[in-house]
Amino acid sequence: MACTLWPIFGSFGLTFACAGRACTQVQGSKAKSVQDLHPLCGRVGHGGVSMQQMAYSLVASELGLAAMVVKVYGPAFASSKRVIVCLVEKEIKFEVVDIDIFKGEGRSPDYLKLQPFGFLPVIRDGDYTLYESRAIIRYYAEKYKSQGTELFGNTMEEKGKVEQWLEVEAHNFHPPIYTLVAHTVFSSKLGITPDQKVIQENEAKLGKVLDIYEERLSTSKYLAGDFFSLADLSHLPFGHYLINGVGKEYLIRDRKHVSAWWDVISNRPSWKKVIQLFPPPT
Amino acid sequence: MACTLWPIFGSFGLTFACAGRACTQVQGSKAKSVQDLHPLCGRVGHGGVSMQQMAYSLVASELGLAAMVVKVYGPAFASSKRVIVCLVEKEIKFEVVDIDIFKGEGRSPDYLKLQPFGFLPVIRDGDYTLYESRAIIRYYAEKYKSQGTELFGNTMEEKGKVEQWLEVEAHNFHPPIYTLVAHTVFSSKLGITPDQKVIQENEAKLGKVLDIYEERLSTSKYLAGDFFSLADLSHLPFGHYLINGVGKEYLIRDRKHVSAWWDVISNRPSWKKVIQLFPPPT
Repeated sequence: MACTLWPIFGSFGLTFACAGRACTQVQGSKAKSVQDLHPLCGRVGHGGVSMQQMAYSLVASELGLAAMVVKVYGPAFASSKRVIVCLVEKEIKFEVVDIDIFKGEGRSPDYLKLQPFGFLPVIRDGDYTLYESRAIIRYYAEKYKSQGTELFGNTMEEKGKVEQWLEVEAHNFHPPIYTLVAHTVFSSKLGITPDQKVIQENEAKLGKVLDIYEERLSTSKYLAGDFFSLADLSHLPFGHYLINGVGKEYLIRDRKHVSAWWDVISNRPSWKKVIQLFPPPT
Repeated sequence: MACTLWPIFGSFGLTFACAGRACTQVQGSKAKSVQDLHPLCGRVGHGGVSMQQMAYSLVASELGLAAMVVKVYGPAFASSKRVIVCLVEKEIKFEVVDIDIFKGEGRSPDYLKLQPFGFLPVIRDGDYTLYESRAIIRYYAEKYKSQGTELFGNTMEEKGKVEQWLEVEAHNFHPPIYTLVAHTVFSSKLGITPDQKVIQENEAKLGKVLDIYEERLSTSKYLAGDFFSLADLSHLPFGHYLINGVGKEYLIRDRKHVSAWWDVISNRPSWKKVIQLFPPPT
């Protein structure tokens, strides 16, 4: 497991914090692009330790956080990005630990102690360990409710709708898109012989799901209502593969409201930075 | 859609409320068994309308509820029972609406207006409609936090663990058990030719999942910790099929801690009543 430290950034300005190492950029300072980061560890702006510690404390204090950084395992993989984009929206400091499941690192004894099923992602937050990406994003969206973007809506009923569409993503959207990704983008890495019949069946299945999204998105800007939420965010990692890799962009573009929704959510600064910083496994 | 009114009951005493009809049994009165219910509508204890209305108001007031009853669609099916057992644990009044997906009622235009994917369950609560069983149970566990059984734990971190194991149930436990049920209990209704290879593969897959449960349950009484939660509750409907129908009880009984856990959760009065009141589709 190689541990790399990465920045956090707010919705507008960028705030970098490489906790535990000697680099911090406090709010107000801005890095214009990923090129501003240190090429190896993503660090920006160096100075004396005491100044950095002070700056770090300022950031922590300003964000109402303990001086603790969330560790996210496996940032190159899609389900880990679901967590990372949530942390960015919530302005929560994090660092990443590389786990390459294609190299079997998900089956190592050390990793299985954290995630006994061997899947990504897992987070460590001090002594607290949590896995399952959609559980992790719910945890942080609620724990830091008043910080960063509100991702559960404002009322109990809005939250219910967020939960409903999170479940739709997990049980209706995810299975066909995952199969498409497995049979196209990562077939060789997964040892799968691409099966055109399976691809066509899942393409058709996903199309039917997106027809229902089209209907829903003709009545509200986002899935759970007229507010961006975890339900939309949860679609980003595999929706990205649909366009970049699977080559089935038409499934989105042929549906006017789905297309507009996708443009809005995939152009959020948080997501654009996540895909810039963490390219998919090659 | 045939609408039938059903009782609610608390963890210990039984409280019946057939809202909108002339029958209510307030807390303190007890029906010893389901045989005490009216054989057709589940009603108990009849009296004059004004007394009943008063009694109903008492129940509503006592439970801190508006005089509104949650409608649950499709009570004979497993995922609807996930919702019903949650409502019972939370002491929330409900009534049921029969939907037989085997007869195509999930594809009727009226039903698709409520649940566009055509799946069960869906609830209506006044003007509010919600679908996806695990979204519905989260909604009620949080909305009525201080009523009935606490199903999310007591701290944010406990709630995170509940979310984690809810996701494990959905993504690790459910797929193989669902496939086993489809290829055994309901193969003829689903038009599936039982495939022994598929059955064996999913039996093996479920066994590996339950090995991890065994390890987990050797360190805590329930999945998320030493408290009963939505994570445990969510396993009841399909866990029940594993023993009653699929005939693979050994998968539970061969694992000491899983077996003890199953006995504890499946013997809760709430679940025993649910399976007594709503037999599976025949």
